Amino acid sequence: MKSLVIHAPLDLRIKESVASDPGPGEVQIAIAAGGICGSDLHYYQHGGIGSIRLKEPMILGHEVSGHITALGEGVEDLKVGQLVAVSPSRPCHDCVYCHEGKHNHCLNMRFYGSAMPFPHIQGAFRQVLVADQAQCAPADGLTAGEAAMAEPLAVCLHGARQAGELLGKRVLVTGCGPIGLLCILAARRAGAAEIVATDLTDFTLKMASENGADRVINSREDPDGLKAYEINKGTFDVLFECTGVAPALAAGIAALRPRGIIVQLGLGGDMQVPVQSITAKELQLRGSFRFHEEFYTGVELMQKGLINVKPLITQTLDLADAVKAFEIAADRTQAMKAQIAFA
Amino acid sequence: MKSLVIHAPLDLRIKESVASDPGPGEVQIAIAAGGICGSDLHYYQHGGIGSIRLKEPMILGHEVSGHITALGEGVEDLKVGQLVAVSPSRPCHDCVYCHEGKHNHCLNMRFYGSAMPFPHIQGAFRQVLVADQAQCAPADGLTAGEAAMAEPLAVCLHGARQAGELLGKRVLVTGCGPIGLLCILAARRAGAAEIVATDLTDFTLKMASENGADRVINSREDPDGLKAYEINKGTFDVLFECTGVAPALAAGIAALRPRGIIVQLGLGGDMQVPVQSITAKELQLRGSFRFHEEFYTGVELMQKGLINVKPLITQTLDLADAVKAFEIAADRTQAMKAQIAFA
Amino acid sequence: MKSLVIHAPLDLRIKESVASDPGPGEVQIAIAAGGICGSDLHYYQHGGIGSIRLKEPMILGHEVSGHITALGEGVEDLKVGQLVAVSPSRPCHDCVYCHEGKHNHCLNMRFYGSAMPFPHIQGAFRQVLVADQAQCAPADGLTAGEAAMAEPLAVCLHGARQAGELLGKRVLVTGCGPIGLLCILAARRAGAAEIVATDLTDFTLKMASENGADRVINSREDPDGLKAYEINKGTFDVLFECTGVAPALAAGIAALRPRGIIVQLGLGGDMQVPVQSITAKELQLRGSFRFHEEFYTGVELMQKGLINVKPLITQTLDLADAVKAFEIAADRTQAMKAQIAFA
Amino acid sequence: MKSLVIHAPLDLRIKESVASDPGPGEVQIAIAAGGICGSDLHYYQHGGIGSIRLKEPMILGHEVSGHITALGEGVEDLKVGQLVAVSPSRPCHDCVYCHEGKHNHCLNMRFYGSAMPFPHIQGAFRQVLVADQAQCAPADGLTAGEAAMAEPLAVCLHGARQAGELLGKRVLVTGCGPIGLLCILAARRAGAAEIVATDLTDFTLKMASENGADRVINSREDPDGLKAYEINKGTFDVLFECTGVAPALAAGIAALRPRGIIVQLGLGGDMQVPVQSITAKELQLRGSFRFHEEFYTGVELMQKGLINVKPLITQTLDLADAVKAFEIAADRTQAMKAQIAFA
Repeated sequence: MKSLVIHAPLDLRIKESVASDPGPGEVQIAIAAGGICGSDLHYYQHGGIGSIRLKEPMILGHEVSGHITALGEGVEDLKVGQLVAVSPSRPCHDCVYCHEGKHNHCLNMRFYGSAMPFPHIQGAFRQVLVADQAQCAPADGLTAGEAAMAEPLAVCLHGARQAGELLGKRVLVTGCGPIGLLCILAARRAGAAEIVATDLTDFTLKMASENGADRVINSREDPDGLKAYEINKGTFDVLFECTGVAPALAAGIAALRPRGIIVQLGLGGDMQVPVQSITAKELQLRGSFRFHEEFYTGVELMQKGLINVKPLITQTLDLADAVKAFEIAADRTQAMKAQIAFA
Repeated sequence: MKSLVIHAPLDLRIKESVASDPGPGEVQIAIAAGGICGSDLHYYQHGGIGSIRLKEPMILGHEVSGHITALGEGVEDLKVGQLVAVSPSRPCHDCVYCHEGKHNHCLNMRFYGSAMPFPHIQGAFRQVLVADQAQCAPADGLTAGEAAMAEPLAVCLHGARQAGELLGKRVLVTGCGPIGLLCILAARRAGAAEIVATDLTDFTLKMASENGADRVINSREDPDGLKAYEINKGTFDVLFECTGVAPALAAGIAALRPRGIIVQLGLGGDMQVPVQSITAKELQLRGSFRFHEEFYTGVELMQKGLINVKPLITQTLDLADAVKAFEIAADRTQAMKAQIAFA
Repeated sequence: MKSLVIHAPLDLRIKESVASDPGPGEVQIAIAAGGICGSDLHYYQHGGIGSIRLKEPMILGHEVSGHITALGEGVEDLKVGQLVAVSPSRPCHDCVYCHEGKHNHCLNMRFYGSAMPFPHIQGAFRQVLVADQAQCAPADGLTAGEAAMAEPLAVCLHGARQAGELLGKRVLVTGCGPIGLLCILAARRAGAAEIVATDLTDFTLKMASENGADRVINSREDPDGLKAYEINKGTFDVLFECTGVAPALAAGIAALRPRGIIVQLGLGGDMQVPVQSITAKELQLRGSFRFHEEFYTGVELMQKGLINVKPLITQTLDLADAVKAFEIAADRTQAMKAQIAFA
Repeated sequence: MKSLVIHAPLDLRIKESVASDPGPGEVQIAIAAGGICGSDLHYYQHGGIGSIRLKEPMILGHEVSGHITALGEGVEDLKVGQLVAVSPSRPCHDCVYCHEGKHNHCLNMRFYGSAMPFPHIQGAFRQVLVADQAQCAPADGLTAGEAAMAEPLAVCLHGARQAGELLGKRVLVTGCGPIGLLCILAARRAGAAEIVATDLTDFTLKMASENGADRVINSREDPDGLKAYEINKGTFDVLFECTGVAPALAAGIAALRPRGIIVQLGLGGDMQVPVQSITAKELQLRGSFRFHEEFYTGVELMQKGLINVKPLITQTLDLADAVKAFEIAADRTQAMKAQIAFA
């Protein structure tokens, strides 16, 4: 079987190896689809993310789905041939945070495709994957591509929950990459009455418009586009900040009404923040990191037709064209979510 | 102009009177549609609700919409001819609860068609109504019938908010009258992943199925229909209790999982309640009463096509047939929401 | 070693048996103090609680403390001779609720002295107990009697948390047994500005006054004592209902202001409840059941002198006088918390 | 009567003028005590705060108490001679935020001693003040100095409420000026189990120790003093950030455990913030601004002896020595709260 291994910046290789058999409680999966995430791109382009650096070759990928090819001992709720979305999140279930039900803060998390601990946690961009049955959400009725969207969708469902109830709320989304788009879908599903989205490229804004945003603003061409929302101390109840960039956060803060909520999903290191406005308007800046049960929730919402991620999958390339897929994924004028077909 | 006045049980009369002009900040409205609510039915059938009794003739009605016919001095945001939904809620804005933003608990509330204070608060089933501009939600793009649904919809949006966020939650609705149906629509809009509904009549259950319930149970024919949901201490995260009847509440409590939430919308006086189960499962029984800003939220959600109440309007009768309309409204084998056309 | 075994109503025996050694991760404890709880009394007086019935002899007791006499393999954070409060709560850490951090709803809970599963879960009224190290809260600086109060204190800290923040709030406590008294202590510690307490006996009300209640009302002698608090829809923000008796709950509901919170701690089976008032005032009836991390919190608060339970321990009797201790514990004219000295 | 007027940086003058009579619903007060706040110091030292600049002479002061000297028409709940704490907060009760119960965000707020609108809102450092009766909290039993602490105490009670319930929580306070100290008192009153405080001067840290902090750290002498709390992703549940200085916020963020809460009380303009840590640990940065009903809550808590602010009043100077009082107030090696005696 083949896997996709990053060795150094721009050095992405297809490697041959032998597939494993599933142990007790595990299943063997023929991976069908894998979505390229921003963190995969960071490893590909820069060999790491901020202070996290590659120290050994690592299989990339954590947004995958596939068909079950073999069941380990004791696995009863899944069957061979079934399409499953595979959660890349593997908490230990035994640390203080797992005991508190905060599994995304597990002290011993082994999340696919992470260079944080050493040895690195190998990823899921591989033709054959052995996983715990608990990682598998049955995805009957979905396409493999949709099922592989379960992971970024879970990130955004988790984010939407940080905002509390959204029924009838006014929502601003800064940044219209896949996370921004999925936040739009999640906010609409949760009942937001008005959704405004900003970004710097017309391609992503067009997709935002087509997937639920009531209005979009190109912040490069119309840098004062949010000014009108600052009237009477602000307009929006909730901001989903998906850029990790200081000017986007600042513009959003100015447009939020008192006691508004910022869900910070974008990762951007240290940032210059108008803290005085947060204080004076009593805003709440709430970090949102990964997900837990939302992985299974997202699959169910897709299966019931309550969230439709299909339009977000803009390209699907064969494994042999993986490098090209990474180049395309990095281009926000043509790609929302680029996926690799592993079969 | 004509209005619809209740004098005593089963004594409902059409009365002629002279229309008033709007004062400063007020508007005059030609009422177009008026929905018959359960409380209207109680006055019609029993002359009151529990200990609240009619002591003088009272115009019924609090679910109305109409077209503006005249603007009082200083009214600028509305225009003649415009369709508006009219909120029946008139808090004083000056008592302790209004100051706390809890307007539905106003100590001096003057809610249309209520026999609670004396003299009674006259209702809105009349051809011409003068109302404060703040009571009017512009309803451009809606039908008059839809606009008249704003009031019961607001009740259910307020109820949905009591439950907190519903994204991906499992929801049980007991009672499939208009309030139950609107709770189904609200819960679906807020992202519920699974909705099960119970009632005693096939007609209402069929409508529940057609408007968002994933599964319906006729509790009369299948009294143990919820038993399967009691496994592992319960299944549902949220119960919208819309009957006010003890067995429905008890069955729902048994089917809720630990820390589940009951939003109590049904009014039913004193009830025998399995309090020990509430304690042992740490459930939360949360009362929900009327609404405030949700009136305007509901109109907006309907205008954006995010909630569709049209299928719930099962009958529309002329004012001349008002008594017949009340008889139909009381019949749950044929009526969901019966409305009167006042024009 | 001796233990205290209930065989049938009023048939409580002291039994001799051989002490066990601690296994890996366990400790052996010489129990010093054990408090008699209402559930112990129910087993003693009635042979069960509601539908839960004794089916075999069972050691009673779940409010205990003692000194460590031996450490099992791998125990490093405790030492021989140390006083510990022993938590009677033993969740499985492996069911769905444990994984969600809701350990008090564990599907496989083994709580000391419970006749719910069969074979019954034997209790902790014994001279030597072997427990997991995780059950032991170091109680250095406390008396054995105080340490044995950690369990009911934890119940009330958990209850106080159900109410949300209490700083400056007005609090009503119905029922002034040990749970009511500890709720008063917890509410005062959490910053309640005013605490009113009701009960039927002067002895318990006097203790309530001495331990933080600003005002007490004997509901038998002054049945309308709460009427004055019903003005303007109610006075109290929070009710801690510690009786499980319908009239107490009803009187408290009438005295709560709109959106007030009832924390239901008293266990009383099915109850007639004024649900319509809960709905109309949008009250929240929140069940509170046992505790989890609050056990350790309570010990720490006692150690820091932030909560003082000493005055609540009204009697301490030797193990030989256990039956007498149970008789005294049942008498609310002389006993708040009666404890047994096991050493 | 005399008042204390700021004309320009370091130009603070005592001015003579004629006292007014109270109108309907108003009272006339002989101011007894006035506390010097950080914002008063800013106007004195710099002629403004950030972009807010003095444009005309302004009476300073918003922390005052005094004795009622005359009652306007219709005032019934207060009496001549009574000590009252006077709230400097005067919301309009008629804007959108007032209607929502968010009075501290009133669009037309007239807060004593603010140069934000023009003409400026004159302050309360004057021998005779006419105020609305609703601004007056009866302070019987308190000293005038204590009553004048009601305002900064209200700020901190409001802040404590932003944190949610604090019973048994671990709390960090960065900055030990009056706001930091009052946060310590509020957190202790609300049941915090452990309080650690940091500052740069030994004088304020000593006062923190004496008023409830379990441990204090001088961040200048021991810049790594919080490092030990970073273990296992962090220790504290709540941070009260009272400096408005970036390094304090950053150090606090590092010491917070996942899902911890930062209540931002310190005002400091734009700040460099480790947003990535907020995201990865899912912290919540919650602004807290002024107060509303907490003003009355604070007076009640002081009257009941539940919060003791007396030790924080380090100096009381006569009005004639006002300039000296301002100099002392600015010196954190000798002053916590300096007050002026106006009588």
